[in-house]
This record gives sequence, C-alpha cells and structure tokens, in this order.
Amino acid sequence: MNRIQVLQEYLAEQHADAMMLTGEVNLIYLTNTTALEGQCLIFKEQSPVFVTDGRYTEVAEKNLIPKGFQVLTRNNTQTLYDVLSEILREHGAETLMYEDDVYTVMAFEDMREKINAALVPIGKKISEMRAYKDDSEVECIIHAQRIAEKALEQLIPEFCEGMTEREAAAKLNYYMALYGSEKPSFDTIVLFGENTSKPHGVPGDRKLQKGDFILLDFGAVYCGYHSDMTRTFAFGAVTEEMRRVYETVLQAQQAAYEAAAEGSECRQMHIAAANVIEQAGYGKYFTHALGHSVGLEIHESPVAAVRCSEPLKNGIVMTDEPGIYLPGKFGVRIEDMLMIDGKKARNLTNFPKELQVLSP
Amino acid sequence: MNRIQVLQEYLAEQHADAMMLTGEVNLIYLTNTTALEGQCLIFKEQSPVFVTDGRYTEVAEKNLIPKGFQVLTRNNTQTLYDVLSEILREHGAETLMYEDDVYTVMAFEDMREKINAALVPIGKKISEMRAYKDDSEVECIIHAQRIAEKALEQLIPEFCEGMTEREAAAKLNYYMALYGSEKPSFDTIVLFGENTSKPHGVPGDRKLQKGDFILLDFGAVYCGYHSDMTRTFAFGAVTEEMRRVYETVLQAQQAAYEAAAEGSECRQMHIAAANVIEQAGYGKYFTHALGHSVGLEIHESPVAAVRCSEPLKNGIVMTDEPGIYLPGKFGVRIEDMLMIDGKKARNLTNFPKELQVLSP
Repeated sequence: MNRIQVLQEYLAEQHADAMMLTGEVNLIYLTNTTALEGQCLIFKEQSPVFVTDGRYTEVAEKNLIPKGFQVLTRNNTQTLYDVLSEILREHGAETLMYEDDVYTVMAFEDMREKINAALVPIGKKISEMRAYKDDSEVECIIHAQRIAEKALEQLIPEFCEGMTEREAAAKLNYYMALYGSEKPSFDTIVLFGENTSKPHGVPGDRKLQKGDFILLDFGAVYCGYHSDMTRTFAFGAVTEEMRRVYETVLQAQQAAYEAAAEGSECRQMHIAAANVIEQAGYGKYFTHALGHSVGLEIHESPVAAVRCSEPLKNGIVMTDEPGIYLPGKFGVRIEDMLMIDGKKARNLTNFPKELQVLSP
Repeated sequence: MNRIQVLQEYLAEQHADAMMLTGEVNLIYLTNTTALEGQCLIFKEQSPVFVTDGRYTEVAEKNLIPKGFQVLTRNNTQTLYDVLSEILREHGAETLMYEDDVYTVMAFEDMREKINAALVPIGKKISEMRAYKDDSEVECIIHAQRIAEKALEQLIPEFCEGMTEREAAAKLNYYMALYGSEKPSFDTIVLFGENTSKPHGVPGDRKLQKGDFILLDFGAVYCGYHSDMTRTFAFGAVTEEMRRVYETVLQAQQAAYEAAAEGSECRQMHIAAANVIEQAGYGKYFTHALGHSVGLEIHESPVAAVRCSEPLKNGIVMTDEPGIYLPGKFGVRIEDMLMIDGKKARNLTNFPKELQVLSP
C-alpha cells in the first residue's frame, strides 16, 4: 500500500473528507520530489490535487502528473484559500484535515478565517508513518552517510597546524556538496582543543594546535534524507586523560548499540550508555540525550532519552552519540546511526572509531 | 529604548504579566547572540530570565549575564513546563504572552495543557519591530552582502566549459564560508542555460556551455543577518534575444528602485517593474513577486507584491528582483537589496549589473 493509500484509509477512519499537506518534508514524503512548494490535497477516492505557483509549475508537472496527481498552478489574481475552497467544493469535501505540527497558531487562525471547510488536526499520524523507514528511505540515508564519510576521508590528511575550525568546516561542506549532498544536514560542527567541550559549539577562528582533540559533527542530505555522524580525533599527541575519556565514550557507544533491540524502550539505549559513563566517574559530564531519530528531518521522533518510553521498532533510524565534556579542557563525542532491525541493530555508519592520533 | 524595554511597555499595554520568546531568530534579536537555544522570559519590571540546557550553559552565561539576564540551566529531572511554571509563580505572573507565529498548533496545545498560566498571543508585534532595521542591523546585512560579493568575484574567473552547476554552487558556498559567512542565506541557486528559466531551480549536473546564461541567486549570513543577491552572466556569447531580455529586466529593476520611496505602498515597487516588463511584451513571463524583506530571516514582511498595500517605511530592507523566464530557453533575474531611506532608497548591493559576457 503506498503512502497516499494509507492516508486515504486514515481519512476514512477519521470520517473526514480531505487532507491537506503543505509542510516541506511531508511533501517530499508524499511525492518523492524535493525542492517543491505547494499544497497537496488528498481525497478518500478521487485523485490527489497539487496546487502550486509559477515558480514550481515545470517541476510539479514533470514529476507529479505521471504519479497520478492533478497539478494546478494558481495565478496572482486568486488568493490561496479561495483556490483551495473551490477545489474542496468541487470534490464535495466539507471537513479538511491539516498538519497541526506544521501550521503555527497564527497561520492556522488565518486559514480558519478564510477557508470554507471544517478543520481537523492530523495529529501524529504522518510523523508516526515517517518514524519507520522503508528500504528505499534507508538507502537514501546510507547514500547520504557515504557522502559524509567520503568527505571526511578527504579532509583528514589536510588537517595541519594553524588551520581554523571555520576553514575545516568550510572544506567539509565543500567536499560533501561535490560528492552530491544537497546541503549540510545541519550546521556543521568542527571544534578544536578546549572548544570541544561545547556540545553545540560553532566553528570559529580557533587554530589547530598539536595536542588538540578535533571534534566533527556533520551530515549530508540525499533526496531529502539526512545523515548524522560525529568523530573525535587527536592531533599530534594525546594525554592519558584524553585517552581514558575517549575509551569511555567508545564503550558507552557500544553499550547503547547492544541495547538497540526491537521491543526495548528507546530510553534503554540512553541508560546503557549513561551507566558506562557513570561507572567511569564522568556521569555529570554527559549532559545531553543519547540520540534522536533521523530521516527527512535531522531531528525526528522517537528519541533515545531518559524520558522516552516508546518502543524501539524495526525501521527506526536512531543516532547513538554519547559524549563527555570537561569544561575548559576538552570533550569527546562519537556518533553512529543505527537502524533497529530485530535483536541486533544495523549500523549504517562505516567509518572507523578507534582513537586515531593524526600526524601534524 | 532597547528591545527588552519596548517589549516591557507592550506587556503593560496588553495588561499581561510576562512574555516568553523561544523562536531562534527572536532570541538573536533579543540577546544579540547566535546559536543559542532556550526560553527567554520577560517581565514588566524584573530582570529577564533565560532558561536553557547543558548544551548552551557556557555560551548563555558568558553572553547574557553581562546584559542583565538571569541564566538558569534546567536538568534532566525537570520538565520544561514545570520549570517555567515555577519561575512564573515566583514572579507572580499569571498571564503569559507567547509567539503565535512560532508555536505550531500541536506545540501550543501541549504547552496549554502543561503550563500554569493564561496564554495570550503576541501577534505581529515582534515581526513589526524587526521590519525596521536599526543601524547595527543594517551594518550586519551589509557585512553579509560584502562576503557574498567577494565570493562571487573569486568564482567568476573559474567558470569554464564543462563545470557543473553543482560544482559552481559548492565553490560559492565554500568561498562565502571562508570569508566569514555563518551559513548560506538559503539554498544557493546556480543554474546554466535552459535551466535558468526555473525561478527556483536546483543546481545539478548540467555542464556549462558556450552561449549559456549563468544565473546565481545566493547570500551569506553574518551575526544571524542574511543577504540576498542575484546576478545573471552570459558565457562566451549572447544572442540578440538574450540581450533584449537582460536589458528589460535591468530597466525593470531600476524602475522598482526609483519607486522605493518612503510613504509609497510596497506594491508600487512591484507595479513599477511589472509595467516595464509588460511594455516590452514579456508580461506573462514575470511569474513571481518583485521582492521580500530581509533580516534575521531570508523572507520577512512586508513584501513587494501586488497584494501588499503596506507603506514603505525607513529602515525596511527589501529585495528588488524582477525576472523574465522563457521556459525551455532561458531566464534572467537581477537582484539587489534596497534600504528604504526617505525619497531615494539606499542600495546595499555593490556588485555591477551591466550585462557581462564572460570569456570561456
């Protein structure tokens, strides 16, 4: 059953006549087409209608008509909600389900005033569908991850004393783009030395020095699907404390991997990693949740956090990214993407994780 | 009067006790700090309180405490809304204004259930404040624009036969990052030849050939502020039709600049440009609105569109970007950023606009 048919069944269950999707990622999910804006109307039985404007007509007609959509380009003389109301009237639709996790309160109030339909929230149906990736989605995530890995491989030999965090991040983004990434999956993090203690630090003018940790947290996007990885390298030299913290994070990461089994609760991944870090005496320096789902958005549900009791189900792609952050000194984070797949998760990340000391 | 004082006065006017800002750009506007997440509570008289989590504590304490904020890091054992409710109680605040243009309907319903306060929408107050840029904001936009121009200057001599759109876009982003852009202002558009007819096309594997137009629409970000520019170049050769279309767009762009006077309606900029294009016989090929405001977001209000009757006021920074798109053949767009400043707008863009035929 394709995604539109699932939503048509949901419409029937909810006794609603039509559903409108307009959120960027929901449109990719529904149409397998990126860089498209518009409103997609789904009806219980009739063909879906995609409403767009002149900027997207060429792309929409080429991609959507073969998939059974009607494509309608509205012009400047008609307001959006007049056009939508007219289509709903022609289809005999009186109730319309809308994306309550996309519309802001203000946009919703505006729509409610102008559209001729009773509005019903979609709720979590689509984000729940999107939580379980099918094979074609996993292939896209893996493709994005391989782009990111290839870019990192190319960057590693270029690290040298005096290079700034900003330069390294710019190069990493450049290589990912050359290898086919549509954009960085999120603002690329590259941090050196004492800056690595900031879990969400921003690359700046700090220059690389011998004895620094280098922390890189980044990803690529392919067909709208995101990847996410973190690696921490030592540059030139490593102290005993750096090595001990690194090995602790790596063990915590492995413990979470072993806890990533179908049927467990999401939080068990976090707890497994947190226990390792706690026992090593660094408990108060692991300051964030272990991970999040990844897909058409970089942060999706469910999450691997203490508060998340949702079950791990096959098809969930979850990051496994414990970290230890010693303020003013250094931080270490190691991150892979895991796909839940029965008793043993599938690791979508290929890049090695043993502590590497790069030559200056 | 600083921005917090303006919002404190607004609280008094609205007879509300507190206001909460949490949207990324509103937080930059309020704190002059980028890359920060959290909730900022403003009270009529007491100091503002910034609530954050462990990932941002270091940055928040360093930047906000000197500005008079209290910074509070919440831990994993407390839910966000319990923490916020407790702060409101301590401040004797019963009504809370929230960003109805940031909260989704779903997030709002969740907050309404969990927070101990009567919720009142802020409405357009903050976006109206943000529409009129002060000197420091205009300086940031200009700085971002200069980064973009420097990157384009560096790219131009590198155009050669066989280079792909994707490679050119990747290089442009790389140069902007090296020159200090925090990220691309939006997904950089670089299109060649027949692809230039798609106003929002995506850079792909199309190779540059002699006789192509090259269209680049891109911007940089500095201290959170965006720039936006478009240039169209001919590569190697240009036909009479290409030249005629280019000159028409350039005249339309100039006509909009002349209409960009304080006190006019926003739409008069659009109409001035559209008239030029109409008279040249290309009316149906100008398929989008003339422009939009730019600031902490790439698309802000008001806009230079047929439907926008809002007045042009000093401090508005509006794009002036007419285009003509001949499907299957080529398109031309030329874009500057104009700051409304009395009778004659200030052009924030320095890059030349005469038709350039680049040597292959």
